[in-house]
Amino acid sequence: MTKLFNDPARFTEDMLVGFLDANSRYVVGVPGGVVRAHKTRPGKVAVVIGGGSGHYPAFCGTVGAGFADGAVVGNIFTSPSTEEAASVARAAHGDAGVLLITGNYAGDVMNFGLAVSQLRGEGIDAHYFAVTDDIASAPKGEEAKRRGIAGDFTVFKAASAAAEEGLDMAGVLRVAEASNAATRTLGVAFDGCTLPGADHPLFTVPDGQMGVGLGIHGEPGVAEEAMPSAADLAATLVNGVLDDKPADTESTRIAVILNGLGRTKYEELFVVWGEVARLLRARGYEVVEPEVGELVTSLDMAGCSLTVMWLDEELERYWRAPADTPAYRKGAAAVADSSGDRRTDGDVRAAAAAPAVRATADDAGRAGGRAVAKLFDALAAMLAEAEDELGRIDAIAGDGDHGRGMVKGSAAARAAAADAVADGAGQGSVLAAAGKQWAAKAGGTSGVLWGALLSALGNRLGDTGRPDSATVAAGMRDGYDALVQLGGAAPGDKTMLDALLPFVDELERRVADGERWEQAWAAAAQTAEAAARATADLRPKVGRARPLAERSVGTPDAGATSLAMCARTVAENLTVKGDSPQ
Amino acid sequence: MTKLFNDPARFTEDMLVGFLDANSRYVVGVPGGVVRAHKTRPGKVAVVIGGGSGHYPAFCGTVGAGFADGAVVGNIFTSPSTEEAASVARAAHGDAGVLLITGNYAGDVMNFGLAVSQLRGEGIDAHYFAVTDDIASAPKGEEAKRRGIAGDFTVFKAASAAAEEGLDMAGVLRVAEASNAATRTLGVAFDGCTLPGADHPLFTVPDGQMGVGLGIHGEPGVAEEAMPSAADLAATLVNGVLDDKPADTESTRIAVILNGLGRTKYEELFVVWGEVARLLRARGYEVVEPEVGELVTSLDMAGCSLTVMWLDEELERYWRAPADTPAYRKGAAAVADSSGDRRTDGDVRAAAAAPAVRATADDAGRAGGRAVAKLFDALAAMLAEAEDELGRIDAIAGDGDHGRGMVKGSAAARAAAADAVADGAGQGSVLAAAGKQWAAKAGGTSGVLWGALLSALGNRLGDTGRPDSATVAAGMRDGYDALVQLGGAAPGDKTMLDALLPFVDELERRVADGERWEQAWAAAAQTAEAAARATADLRPKVGRARPLAERSVGTPDAGATSLAMCARTVAENLTVKGDSPQ
Repeated sequence: MTKLFNDPARFTEDMLVGFLDANSRYVVGVPGGVVRAHKTRPGKVAVVIGGGSGHYPAFCGTVGAGFADGAVVGNIFTSPSTEEAASVARAAHGDAGVLLITGNYAGDVMNFGLAVSQLRGEGIDAHYFAVTDDIASAPKGEEAKRRGIAGDFTVFKAASAAAEEGLDMAGVLRVAEASNAATRTLGVAFDGCTLPGADHPLFTVPDGQMGVGLGIHGEPGVAEEAMPSAADLAATLVNGVLDDKPADTESTRIAVILNGLGRTKYEELFVVWGEVARLLRARGYEVVEPEVGELVTSLDMAGCSLTVMWLDEELERYWRAPADTPAYRKGAAAVADSSGDRRTDGDVRAAAAAPAVRATADDAGRAGGRAVAKLFDALAAMLAEAEDELGRIDAIAGDGDHGRGMVKGSAAARAAAADAVADGAGQGSVLAAAGKQWAAKAGGTSGVLWGALLSALGNRLGDTGRPDSATVAAGMRDGYDALVQLGGAAPGDKTMLDALLPFVDELERRVADGERWEQAWAAAAQTAEAAARATADLRPKVGRARPLAERSVGTPDAGATSLAMCARTVAENLTVKGDSPQ
Repeated sequence: MTKLFNDPARFTEDMLVGFLDANSRYVVGVPGGVVRAHKTRPGKVAVVIGGGSGHYPAFCGTVGAGFADGAVVGNIFTSPSTEEAASVARAAHGDAGVLLITGNYAGDVMNFGLAVSQLRGEGIDAHYFAVTDDIASAPKGEEAKRRGIAGDFTVFKAASAAAEEGLDMAGVLRVAEASNAATRTLGVAFDGCTLPGADHPLFTVPDGQMGVGLGIHGEPGVAEEAMPSAADLAATLVNGVLDDKPADTESTRIAVILNGLGRTKYEELFVVWGEVARLLRARGYEVVEPEVGELVTSLDMAGCSLTVMWLDEELERYWRAPADTPAYRKGAAAVADSSGDRRTDGDVRAAAAAPAVRATADDAGRAGGRAVAKLFDALAAMLAEAEDELGRIDAIAGDGDHGRGMVKGSAAARAAAADAVADGAGQGSVLAAAGKQWAAKAGGTSGVLWGALLSALGNRLGDTGRPDSATVAAGMRDGYDALVQLGGAAPGDKTMLDALLPFVDELERRVADGERWEQAWAAAAQTAEAAARATADLRPKVGRARPLAERSVGTPDAGATSLAMCARTVAENLTVKGDSPQ
């Protein structure tokens, strides 16, 4: 388990302080992550990688010459926020565009995708690519649904080397796609890991058993088998990966990674590697510069994975290319980084600057803003209480970070709302500010969705006058619509939508029937609670492996549950006399 | 725990196969370990490092340009044998001498020391140095008694860089001494590790506690404390190390390693590092190119250590010097290795060649040889049964490898004895061959001692005629004397001597009184068993930290116990009619 921390809530920030200090010759910190200590040279596409932390050396450990230009650093096992991704990309960007790459996870896809939109709006040629190497997470033919695990490394390296070589954005994107199409990984785990400050592991594997196909956040795999010998494990991994060989290659030259997840140590990996290498050669393959070690970890999870990238001439060149980064160095390093000037503090601050705009509110709007801020007080207090329960539910089918994310998000929203009120903002701006900070600080999937929901509602309510009941209902409908557009999920997919849609329907229906929105809200909150409970009968349909979907049946969705809890808390606090909007 | 292996008894061999395969551009295998893939260039002192395995990247992971020329690879947590150390040194040697360096452990000191004598006998200018950085293992003023832990890395690197720079043997030895004198380490552990195939950990740390000063094999430390926050741990480590600052330096420039033992992961280390760096700077120090990561591990032990090397101009140059090895790369690598030719298979075989000499025996001597070989059958069978029990006793005060070592040694001795019998050897040559292989395959302290005991006995018995009782008794006395000379221990130090001396005294006394040696042996074996049990009341006096010595009181010494068990097994098998020598 993770034993060393100060305040668990600040684990990632504390980690970054130490990482940046120890590696100041390679990297500097920017809001949301790290970039190379030297500026990206003119004409070079910037490659920004990222995702949640807890996977070191992925992702910040491979920022440097020959590898990434920047890394966005989320909380442990949690997607960074849109704002963080955009901030790092802005800082890493030279003048030739920026490619953001992550593993294929809903939260990363959403946040990095939104960051791309934002960056394009600022005139930066930004693109996004998601790695899908994990063969256990979706069957053949549905490769695009697969997660990214240790194959992140081969794809990040190939794209980065292509950018270092001087390819333009189209070329770098093509290499990212080609390396991803050529990469397959199968992983196994023998024991779980424990998040900093948690008192029980994220998941466990029964003694003497092995989980085949487990993800790097403990997402359940495709099968549980008796713990094999090293030789039998090698056969399982080699057969599994080679059986999924991409259809469009007959190459016999392969780049290979035998990756340790954290607790499975080097000596064990070498024992397995001896067998893996023998089996690969017996199948007629030539192994090119294999990596045996810890490249994409999961805190101290016990387990390992085998990654194969089938090489053509171009991919082999990128695989063999030199790199010089904090945690990964290869060949005649000290590459071309000296061609860019060293960054100064001014550069870093400039990259982080973001103008604050405040709309003009009237008295009624400001009263509404104060009422909204009080509701955020109540939500933040309620969610702090509910953190463990939400984490427990989420750990059954996901990675257990939902409680933490909701606490971080609501606390940030509460602070932002209070600041906005102090600035004289109306309800619309208070909601927008709260939504922005919720998304920025919570990260993950729920963070960006809550941010969008609150922003949409705020836009509809505006900063002047007291919104009438129809406007409140319409605002919630706007929020629902924003989520559907963003998340790619539909009702029935076992997400927060399954509580939000019945809530919005009920709210609208009652308001249309003439009820005041406060009364309608209380009734709709009850509807949402019943709907959240009913998600226990559903199977997740997006972004989840099938065995995980099966396992989650019988447990309500964490996102739907927390949404219903929030709806109820708002209803309870609307009865307070005085400032409440009508 | 260690989960991945095939036959646990072949773990190290299997590990080396995979390590060499994955790193063939850096290293090749030779009997006993690995050397650089390129020959040592003329005029360059060869540096050979080593010790037991289970510490990767120490030691074989740092063989390469700018670092070591070779690494001797023992079994997990067990000193390599004399023969292994000599073999690797021979292969690594160019024409300018070879420096062997290990951490300061009794087994390593003995085996590498004997290897140096052997190499000098062959005309190679060989030297040995032991690292003593662990401040918890002996108090100030007794620095020479301290163990070597993560400070192995700074000393190995400094000496290696000095050799790479072209210093002669005197110069390299001076740098080894200077870097060791300037290096201090304090380690902590939170949880134990499990040897391959074992069903319980080598040691445990109570939940919520931290062992301060634990060694890298689980040797108990100086104190047990409540598990601290990362910041408090940083203060403990910084204060502990700085309080032990060498008296002869006022340098404010320091090389620093925050080393993870295996399960304490990078993110946690960075959290601690942030605090360590702050505290060191607050004390006026400038930290030069710190290393935060896994450099000297202990399988999957949870814990970490802080190493500081106070720098002068010369040590700073060596600390910053480039290196290019399987697991550690720094600076403009690809150093000077191309100046040496790449080794061929012929080089590797030549380095391993060792002539076999067989003395001429008569019929009586050959009958004695067959009888001795049968005794080794019985010893090997008995020790295979006793492995777990011996390991359990040894784990209380040592590193738990005694059972494994006795099994490996006796099995190798049994095979060597059978081979010698097939070659027509007499009792003396059978014992000598068995002793040589026992030492070669068991490694560790007990291996070299048993090898010396058997060789001395064989020398006395000779290959012709049936030795009389006085000769057998004199042979055992020769064995005892050889051990005293080799081991630096005395009776009362809680070692195998405490069983062997009463045994030899009793055997001699009875034989002098006219008893046949077989009857005298049976009685002496009983004396040895009583003496072995009585070692439970003793405190170890050599090579052990004080708290460990305290902890061992109440448990008999593992080496004394196994010696008594062997004496009894011999006695039981002497009653068999027929071939037994008289």
